[in-house]
Amino acid sequence: MALKARVLYDFHSENPGEISVRENELVTVFSEEELEGWLEGKNSRGRLASSPRPTWRSSGTTSPPTRPITTRPITTASPRPNPLAIPHFCGGSFHTSQGSDDDWDDDWDDTLPATQQAKSTATVGRNLNRFSTFVKSGGEAFLLGEANALVRDGDMMCVVMGKHGPEWQEDPYPFTCTIDDPTKQTKFKGMKSYMSYGLTPSHTNVQVNRRYKHFDWLYARLVERFPVISVPHLPEKQATGRFEEDFISKRRKGLMWWMNHMTSHPVLARCDSWKLGKRKAERDELVGANFFLTINPPDVPLDLQDVESKVEGFKTFTKRMDENIIVVNTTINEFGRKQMIGFKKEYQKVGQSFKVLAQAFEMDQQAYSVGLNKAIAYTGEAYETIGEYFADQPRHDLDPISDLLDIYKGHLANYPDIIDVQKGALTKVKDCPQQESDLHERCNIISCATLAEIQHFHRTRVRDFRLQMQHHLQQQISFFQKITAKLEDALHRYDEQ
Amino acid sequence: MALKARVLYDFHSENPGEISVRENELVTVFSEEELEGWLEGKNSRGRLASSPRPTWRSSGTTSPPTRPITTRPITTASPRPNPLAIPHFCGGSFHTSQGSDDDWDDDWDDTLPATQQAKSTATVGRNLNRFSTFVKSGGEAFLLGEANALVRDGDMMCVVMGKHGPEWQEDPYPFTCTIDDPTKQTKFKGMKSYMSYGLTPSHTNVQVNRRYKHFDWLYARLVERFPVISVPHLPEKQATGRFEEDFISKRRKGLMWWMNHMTSHPVLARCDSWKLGKRKAERDELVGANFFLTINPPDVPLDLQDVESKVEGFKTFTKRMDENIIVVNTTINEFGRKQMIGFKKEYQKVGQSFKVLAQAFEMDQQAYSVGLNKAIAYTGEAYETIGEYFADQPRHDLDPISDLLDIYKGHLANYPDIIDVQKGALTKVKDCPQQESDLHERCNIISCATLAEIQHFHRTRVRDFRLQMQHHLQQQISFFQKITAKLEDALHRYDEQ
Repeated sequence: MALKARVLYDFHSENPGEISVRENELVTVFSEEELEGWLEGKNSRGRLASSPRPTWRSSGTTSPPTRPITTRPITTASPRPNPLAIPHFCGGSFHTSQGSDDDWDDDWDDTLPATQQAKSTATVGRNLNRFSTFVKSGGEAFLLGEANALVRDGDMMCVVMGKHGPEWQEDPYPFTCTIDDPTKQTKFKGMKSYMSYGLTPSHTNVQVNRRYKHFDWLYARLVERFPVISVPHLPEKQATGRFEEDFISKRRKGLMWWMNHMTSHPVLARCDSWKLGKRKAERDELVGANFFLTINPPDVPLDLQDVESKVEGFKTFTKRMDENIIVVNTTINEFGRKQMIGFKKEYQKVGQSFKVLAQAFEMDQQAYSVGLNKAIAYTGEAYETIGEYFADQPRHDLDPISDLLDIYKGHLANYPDIIDVQKGALTKVKDCPQQESDLHERCNIISCATLAEIQHFHRTRVRDFRLQMQHHLQQQISFFQKITAKLEDALHRYDEQ
Repeated sequence: MALKARVLYDFHSENPGEISVRENELVTVFSEEELEGWLEGKNSRGRLASSPRPTWRSSGTTSPPTRPITTRPITTASPRPNPLAIPHFCGGSFHTSQGSDDDWDDDWDDTLPATQQAKSTATVGRNLNRFSTFVKSGGEAFLLGEANALVRDGDMMCVVMGKHGPEWQEDPYPFTCTIDDPTKQTKFKGMKSYMSYGLTPSHTNVQVNRRYKHFDWLYARLVERFPVISVPHLPEKQATGRFEEDFISKRRKGLMWWMNHMTSHPVLARCDSWKLGKRKAERDELVGANFFLTINPPDVPLDLQDVESKVEGFKTFTKRMDENIIVVNTTINEFGRKQMIGFKKEYQKVGQSFKVLAQAFEMDQQAYSVGLNKAIAYTGEAYETIGEYFADQPRHDLDPISDLLDIYKGHLANYPDIIDVQKGALTKVKDCPQQESDLHERCNIISCATLAEIQHFHRTRVRDFRLQMQHHLQQQISFFQKITAKLEDALHRYDEQ
């Protein structure tokens, strides 16, 4: 059934099959049923295409056909579904340009390393100047009412009160990404080489190509934009051996981990930076202080004393976790190294010694001896194979834990700054008289965002570590079962013929 | 049903319940059915008791009631069943004396170390003088017809022609021994301490106590007595720590291995030295050269050229096996050490690091976190336990191989001498005219005994290594299954409650 709808705000088409619509424009929607966050319909110029759902609202409903754009949201507008956030980074193309703003690849000066670029484009980087994080992040400016930007409905991020305290409203369209097919590409007639990774989001299942520097750009944008959200660090850079198989495989996995941390975060996954073209994103106003304008807190303000104690508790927690995951990471890396070198060598030496025993026994070729000789030689081979199993195992069950610990190490490094913003706001409010209700309201917003982020951290941590420990144990079980099967195979060789 | 029987040769009772009988004496047997090699009956003096079966023969049979004692056997008399050989060492008592000859314990001068004793009582030791083994062993004396002793029927050892060449006639009453309950004993009012081992032969299942020096005495007697039979070395001596648990346990196992090599050898298991009292045994005439008098070769003499090539092949084999089992022994001992120290440490370090991770996580006691914290802590414990499994494992599956290799190392050290006796005889015969048929006949006896012993070595080796490798693999399989079960247990802790 076709419906008439009025467009809530501008949308500029960025890919074939999308149509551009203007605020207040009347459009025809073919069905209210969404297809992965998009609606099909046509506009006044008769163009038939799809457009993201919240861009228009059915004119048949009682809600007003348009909403005013405010600097401070006052309603709990439902967040834009995920797909809005994705098209550009995950679903659009960085290479097939549709206009100058969109031609990401040409925007890059390939002579500059990607990080430097990212930093030069980030207007508010962390740890870049001598001011406190509270000041740098824009937390202070927001608290003092100095933030000022246009905030559209779709930019709003809701904090809701859950069973365990404030939490980000869940992303109704969760998705994941796989990163595969790392391929070496060349440009400037082969003068420059780079690695391109195939990124496939679960909701479209269409692969797009991305380079490390694109991830790097996105990282810098997200850090700049979100003062109290932990954006995990990208897998580390490496100056040499960029095209070596091991490094590429490790980077691929690292990027996948990173992407999935991004896509599973209710705020980050919906960030415009994913959607906007490069230059537009860099002109985005909702960064730093202005980010707090997009936070929609629960109705009842938090008890600031309670917030303070929770944040303090989390600070202690992160410090301890940071120290302890260093221990775990060092230990399992060393354990992996031991398995790959020491354990393998030991099993292979035993295998070789059994083969040597078989060789001596083979000098007696009497009928009743032959079966045993072969069985012992086979046992030797089995031990050599078990040595290989040991050497191969760490990448299946220790490396993933190590990767996870690396991600969390990055998170933990972000939290002192996040906590500083919260503490800065709290200190400021304590100094101010109760009647400054705006200040208290704004402090509540910062507190809600911080506690929601802490809650998200814990939930993600519990989910990630549970999954990873399960994976580790399952892999270990398969590993020891594989060894057992090999030994059973060897044992049967001793059955009398 | 009672039967009349005529005694074949003297038997002197050595334990309560046995009766002494004289050659040709008529006795009454209550039943032809043996009870573990013994028959029940009474003698002319009306004494009611049991006596070993072959001592008498039923007078109701057609076989002659007595057999002449000759210096050279001419018949293939069936060997005496095993039990005859056992009573004294395995089934009688070394401690409860019935007469001066039998009071083994008092015969020993406890101020002298047992080895020295054994050597001083051995009239023909190996490697003790500058003469060739051929001379020392008595091989030369026998070959030259200088051997001279009374040989009774029951002393005869048959060599039969089997599928793979000459072999010892199989022991019709095979038995094994377990050695348990090492206990510290004292004598001279506590002035002297020694370890006593409980020896239980499978055919009587009655435990007797023996000391290391008794085994040592037996070893020396057997070495002296059998020129071409490999008597395995006793487990090594140790000057200090004789009462330490590890040493006692190792010695106990070593003595058991040794005993079972003795009892599974068709000639050694039947040796009189097991039966005779200590002084009688030391007066035994059938040692060295005279041993060959007891060999009953197959009807058709061997081809000496063939013998020469077989013995040469065996010489090469033993050299290679000797070299290679050193490699195996070194490797598996090192592997065991690594498992007990290195592997254990690695698993325990990983276990501890998981526990440390759980400790950090326990600082977040939110409901959704608790299950994970406990599961990770349990995983840590599981890894520590697996470390213990690794440390405990070598004694189950590597030590037994090492023990076996030690036994065979001892065997291999015996063979150069055995081969020398055979080569000495062969060289002597080559120098002699064909018409010296006695010389050829005697060389054939030495050759038959040597090849039978080589055959026995190979058969025992194949049996022992098959069993031990099977045991090793079975233990390894159980070990890895135990680890798998532990990991599965840990995995289940992650199931969401």
